[in-house]
Order: sequence, then C-alpha cells, then structure tokens
Amino acid sequence: MDKLRQHIEELSPLTDAEFDLIKPYFTYRRIKKHQYLTQEGDQSVAEYLILSGVFRMFHLDADGKEYIVQFAGENWWVADYQAYFKGKLATLHITCMEDAEVLCLNLNGREKLATEFHKMEHFFRMKLTNGYVALHRRILSLLSSTPQQRYEEFGQLYPQLMQKIPKKYIAEYLGVSRETLSRLYSNK
Amino acid sequence: MDKLRQHIEELSPLTDAEFDLIKPYFTYRRIKKHQYLTQEGDQSVAEYLILSGVFRMFHLDADGKEYIVQFAGENWWVADYQAYFKGKLATLHITCMEDAEVLCLNLNGREKLATEFHKMEHFFRMKLTNGYVALHRRILSLLSSTPQQRYEEFGQLYPQLMQKIPKKYIAEYLGVSRETLSRLYSNK
Repeated sequence: MDKLRQHIEELSPLTDAEFDLIKPYFTYRRIKKHQYLTQEGDQSVAEYLILSGVFRMFHLDADGKEYIVQFAGENWWVADYQAYFKGKLATLHITCMEDAEVLCLNLNGREKLATEFHKMEHFFRMKLTNGYVALHRRILSLLSSTPQQRYEEFGQLYPQLMQKIPKKYIAEYLGVSRETLSRLYSNK
Repeated sequence: MDKLRQHIEELSPLTDAEFDLIKPYFTYRRIKKHQYLTQEGDQSVAEYLILSGVFRMFHLDADGKEYIVQFAGENWWVADYQAYFKGKLATLHITCMEDAEVLCLNLNGREKLATEFHKMEHFFRMKLTNGYVALHRRILSLLSSTPQQRYEEFGQLYPQLMQKIPKKYIAEYLGVSRETLSRLYSNK
C-alpha cells in the first residue's frame, strides 16, 4: 500500500489518518501472464491501478480480429471505462502480458472516496485530465500521422513499453503491418 | 448566466451565494460563423462552454488537409485540451459553423474553482468522465468499425448535429469519402 500512497500523493498529499480511511477501498491482486482482468460481456467491471506488470486492452471483432485500444504499465490506471462508468457490460478485453500486481477499485468505492475526500476528487480529476489529453493525442495520431510518425511518437512517449511489448502488438496498436514496423525498427 | 447555472446543477446543485462566487470566472462571448475560437500556434488557449451554435475542431497537416477531431454543439465544452491543460501552444483549430454564444473559462479560473468548491471539482470530474468515455468510443470506432457502423453510431449519438452539419464535414469526421456517405444517406 506504500506505492498507492506515493501514487496519490504525487497529486494530493494526505495525512496518515486520511490514508487509513482511503486504503480499505482498494483490493490487492496478483495476476499471472495471460490472465484476464476484464473480458467482453463481464458485468460490473472494476478499475485497476497497476503496481507492476503490463496489460493490453483490446476489442475482438466478429471475425476474431484484435484491435488494441491501449497498453498499460506500472502506475497506470486501466479499465473498460465505457462499461465501468456507465454500468454496462464490458465490450473490451484486458489481458496481462507480464506477471503483475494490481489494486482494484470498484465504481461505488471510487464515488464514495470522491464525495468524502475533496483531495481524492481532485486526484481523480487530475488523472482523468491526463488520460483525456492522452486519448486526444491518440485520436489525432490515428487520423493524421504516418506510420513512421506514430512509431516515433510511441517510442518517445512510452520508452519502457517499447522495450517490453512484443513487436506484433506494437504493430497492431499503431495500425501498421509487421513488415512496416520491422523496417521502422531497422531504420532507427 | 441562467444557462450556466442550469448546466452546472445537472451535476452539482449550488446555493445562490455559491453561484454568485462562481459566475465571475466565466466570460460571455458572441462568435460569428467562420470565426475561430482557437487557431494553431495560439498561446494560453481557453476552454469554452457552448450556449448555442456549432463548432468544429480540426488539425491541418502540412499539405492543408483537414482532420476533424470533433464537433461540438449546445452545452458541450470544447478546447484544444492538450494545449489548455499542458500550457502548450495550440496544435488544433476550433472554428464556428453557425453563429454562436459561448462562455469562456481559462485554466487558472478552472483550477481555482475546483480548489475552492468541492462541488465544482465534482462537476469538472464528471464532465471529464463523460468526455473520456466518448473519446474511448471514438478510438474504438476509428480502429474497428465499418463506415456504415460509424455513420449509424454518429446518427444515434448526435441526431441534432447530423441535421446541422454539412455532409462533407461528416464524411471527413467519419473518415469516409463523400460518395460513400451519400450512399449511406440514401440507404437509410
């Protein structure tokens, strides 16, 4: 739980008493490689703070083709947010790519934390702000960048993920063929 | 300012005294069709609550090709959020497609409101939550939907915008040719 406190305090410093009230809302879980946090059709999905490990969130179409929405590494929050915030069935899969530890938070807990602690409402707002900006950037990149630009941007933004994630998934995420990606790697 | 109060109170009911303290942070502006709220390269961009009218936010590439990130109508908030939240130069254009009225909020004001009023921090968090979910949906749609699906989804989500916005911009937003869009309209 030390990591949780450190993570929250990057945005909202807490007293010991406050943290003692906050931490019971989070549940610790170990996740093995290939295990799923969320699968399409799941009810009442949760949100996860990743303490270690790497995850991949994707949509499977009717033909079994995978579309990667995002990767998530240490200190990232991940959820099928459409399902989470709107109380709907999951439409995405979240799978573990490297043995991981996470803290799990359900929506009820999140809303209670935000209501009872202005500091936590602030923390969640700032996290959403950063997430919103990242999604904006991804949309713009999907609309207008070349594969070369998308590859370079990904490498700049997420150097650690670039090392850890197999190339075939990076190619899928960037929307380029493996051949194109190999060419980009070798031109580096 | 009645509209502002009504808009905030959909998520956070306020007392008269609170609203009197909140409203000075917002500046009213009338915007004519074809006028810009934000242009690429602008410094210290603001965020706008649209009271009436329709806007289009887009990126122009080096060849002058336009990539539409989003449309925004009545009661929507719009900004080049990457520039706004990160204090960077604008990389997007926001232009008025129909005479409009907006309320303008700068980042300093927004942060003060959130700090001084837990209710406003809640309001902004919930707005960001909805925006985050909408961007998630758009990414998934860009990655995996057919033009037909994107067209139908847009019509379901934003029936009013569908009526108001010229087809050529809807085609651009959906990433389809005008011919494809005309076929989709006539198949309706």
